[in-house]
Amino acid sequence: MKHRVVVVGAGFAGLQLVQGLKGAGCDITLIDQRNHHLFQPLLYQVATTLLATSEIAWPIRRVMRSREDVTTLLATVTGVDRVAREVVLDSGTRIPFDTLVVATGARHAYFGNDHWEADAPGLKTLEDATTIRRRLLLAFERAELTDDEAEREAQLTFAVVGAGATGVELAGIIAELAHRILPREFRHIDTHRARVLLIEAGPRILPAFREDLADYATRALERRGVEVLTGVPVTDCTAEGIMLGDKPIPSRTIIWAAGVQASPASQWLDAEADRAGRVKVTDTLALPDDPAIFVLGDTANVESGGRQVPGIAPAAKQQGKYAARLIRSRLDGKAARAPFHYRHMGDLATIGQNAAIIDFGRFQMKGLLAWWVWGIAHIYFLIGGRSRLMVSISWLWSYLSGQNSARLITQKETLRR
Amino acid sequence: MKHRVVVVGAGFAGLQLVQGLKGAGCDITLIDQRNHHLFQPLLYQVATTLLATSEIAWPIRRVMRSREDVTTLLATVTGVDRVAREVVLDSGTRIPFDTLVVATGARHAYFGNDHWEADAPGLKTLEDATTIRRRLLLAFERAELTDDEAEREAQLTFAVVGAGATGVELAGIIAELAHRILPREFRHIDTHRARVLLIEAGPRILPAFREDLADYATRALERRGVEVLTGVPVTDCTAEGIMLGDKPIPSRTIIWAAGVQASPASQWLDAEADRAGRVKVTDTLALPDDPAIFVLGDTANVESGGRQVPGIAPAAKQQGKYAARLIRSRLDGKAARAPFHYRHMGDLATIGQNAAIIDFGRFQMKGLLAWWVWGIAHIYFLIGGRSRLMVSISWLWSYLSGQNSARLITQKETLRR
Repeated sequence: MKHRVVVVGAGFAGLQLVQGLKGAGCDITLIDQRNHHLFQPLLYQVATTLLATSEIAWPIRRVMRSREDVTTLLATVTGVDRVAREVVLDSGTRIPFDTLVVATGARHAYFGNDHWEADAPGLKTLEDATTIRRRLLLAFERAELTDDEAEREAQLTFAVVGAGATGVELAGIIAELAHRILPREFRHIDTHRARVLLIEAGPRILPAFREDLADYATRALERRGVEVLTGVPVTDCTAEGIMLGDKPIPSRTIIWAAGVQASPASQWLDAEADRAGRVKVTDTLALPDDPAIFVLGDTANVESGGRQVPGIAPAAKQQGKYAARLIRSRLDGKAARAPFHYRHMGDLATIGQNAAIIDFGRFQMKGLLAWWVWGIAHIYFLIGGRSRLMVSISWLWSYLSGQNSARLITQKETLRR
Repeated sequence: MKHRVVVVGAGFAGLQLVQGLKGAGCDITLIDQRNHHLFQPLLYQVATTLLATSEIAWPIRRVMRSREDVTTLLATVTGVDRVAREVVLDSGTRIPFDTLVVATGARHAYFGNDHWEADAPGLKTLEDATTIRRRLLLAFERAELTDDEAEREAQLTFAVVGAGATGVELAGIIAELAHRILPREFRHIDTHRARVLLIEAGPRILPAFREDLADYATRALERRGVEVLTGVPVTDCTAEGIMLGDKPIPSRTIIWAAGVQASPASQWLDAEADRAGRVKVTDTLALPDDPAIFVLGDTANVESGGRQVPGIAPAAKQQGKYAARLIRSRLDGKAARAPFHYRHMGDLATIGQNAAIIDFGRFQMKGLLAWWVWGIAHIYFLIGGRSRLMVSISWLWSYLSGQNSARLITQKETLRR
């Protein structure tokens, strides 16, 4: 019988692992609760009307269509039976495995304030992105309709919480939307007056980057009209607004980009997790007491060279690649492989049109050239020629015409909150 | 004071009217309950994964951005005060008018069986299209997951009710999806075995077309694996399936393309309506007792040359153009214009790749050439170069690669019904 590999999660780690097992003669089952793989690094551009949903998501089945050794299942995992060696689905069906790979990613975390989520949604799925897009666009519509000056100001105040790369990128585009793209379209309000707040509890924005790049980013954001607030703790989020320390700021649109919590994989596996819910794995990315169960990507707490491996796409891909090679070595009966070693390729973030920062460690880039390098790198990493072409056209069109292409308000939500 | 024109509905009729009033010196308010104009003739392609939502919808504000004389409002109209000459919004706000244009379109109708809607959704909005897309794709996923042969068959039975152009086009693409695009992607089911039923109560499909074209369409559909059933009344739609006369057919995906009901404009206006809810207007497209209130498009019951004007995009556009000219004539104090005359340009429908029918009245086309003419005509009618480019690429890509690009399942709906 063929060696049965069950992979839960078709993100960067899961897909890379399946790709690495091509031709290995395994019987692979790839399970995800969504029908699409999502290119999360560009999700913020869907939330801010630059890209359409279908430009950064691909049906997992289609990606796997020529892999006869892979069975794709759209299903929700509810647990893992480690004794019987089976994954349990919500339908009750059990999928047996010889090797299990769990790479189920993370959700946003509210540090014990989960009730903030309704008023301060995070950004992890396509639905999150269309929810944020709808709220952003509705805020301008509501401001246009109201005669109440205080309400208008609250509708035109946008608060982004957390100044990592995602928070910076969101704030930058929202400011461009308000100050560059929308002004000509409204008759009662001046969208130039919209306030965009980028709120960070830590001492500075972009802690993963060198300080001079973060300084450049702060200046670039401020030039675009973003108010950058550092060392400011968020103490409450409600439908009325956001509380910074003991200062209330009326705001109808809050976006949460401040923290992540791993998926419940540690509970399924009854395995030790860190505070963020990430499963602690060995240097071969497996459970300490079970070398045939791997945990990869944002779901895993991995160290390399004495440092925590960051929760970014290149790290997840490297882990998927490593685990695939390890599984192949075992099947071939070869000696144990060297432990996982993470190679950091660099950090990059856009601030807005013509401005990005790239920190390669050895050297840095910023400004226009960095922005082009950022764009070309991201197009390169998309799946398939069609997405590359479509995203390129959307970006070029937006660049040349000053118009974003995906400004649709869809799904029911009453106009009046 | 400027002449105040209030336009309710930014469909084909409404937009054409506003365009016709360019430079007329009016103060125009354009009200719609959605933020986008929708190119409805291609909506079925969004429902069947060929096109993305943003490719056939445009923010109304953006279309109107250079028209300083137009104020766009995203709002829901709840009534019209004909005495005070004001349109009433759901917020309670009242918008005064000198001339009122109501062009609010139609919804699908169930002929007294509105409870069928949950199990047999129709196709009028972007949400309708993504709902149908989700159900179509989930049916294949559920079939792949189940071990129950009867359930699998019900999941793989797709019923399209109504064989006008929309029903024919839907059935054609669903058959292509099942028989040409998806087969390689599933491991447990053979999607070739999927049944696609096109159900028509009348004696033949495509009553608007010449009989030889309808015969050609029937053969083209059957070649693609569609079962065409005519003279068959639908007597019930439930979550279990569809009842044809007294014969139950288990089916988990029913799509309603059988009838339309006009929006509640006749109630707002306290005006006489026909059985389908369409307001009866004079030959100048106005209310019989109020020449300053126009009703256009699918909301109106209009006759021209002794025949009912059909509810299609070119007819709505011609009405918008006529009403704009009439309003301009009145403002200029010119003599009354000739009554509205509808010029029928023809009927067209696609059956699937390489097959379409066009009935220009004087001559007819079918097959490959008609399909290309159909495609080029539709690209021509899209708004803006970006949409034309994107839709062209999506179609070409699908044609050359055999892959549809918008196969995403989004929004929450549990996998198990």
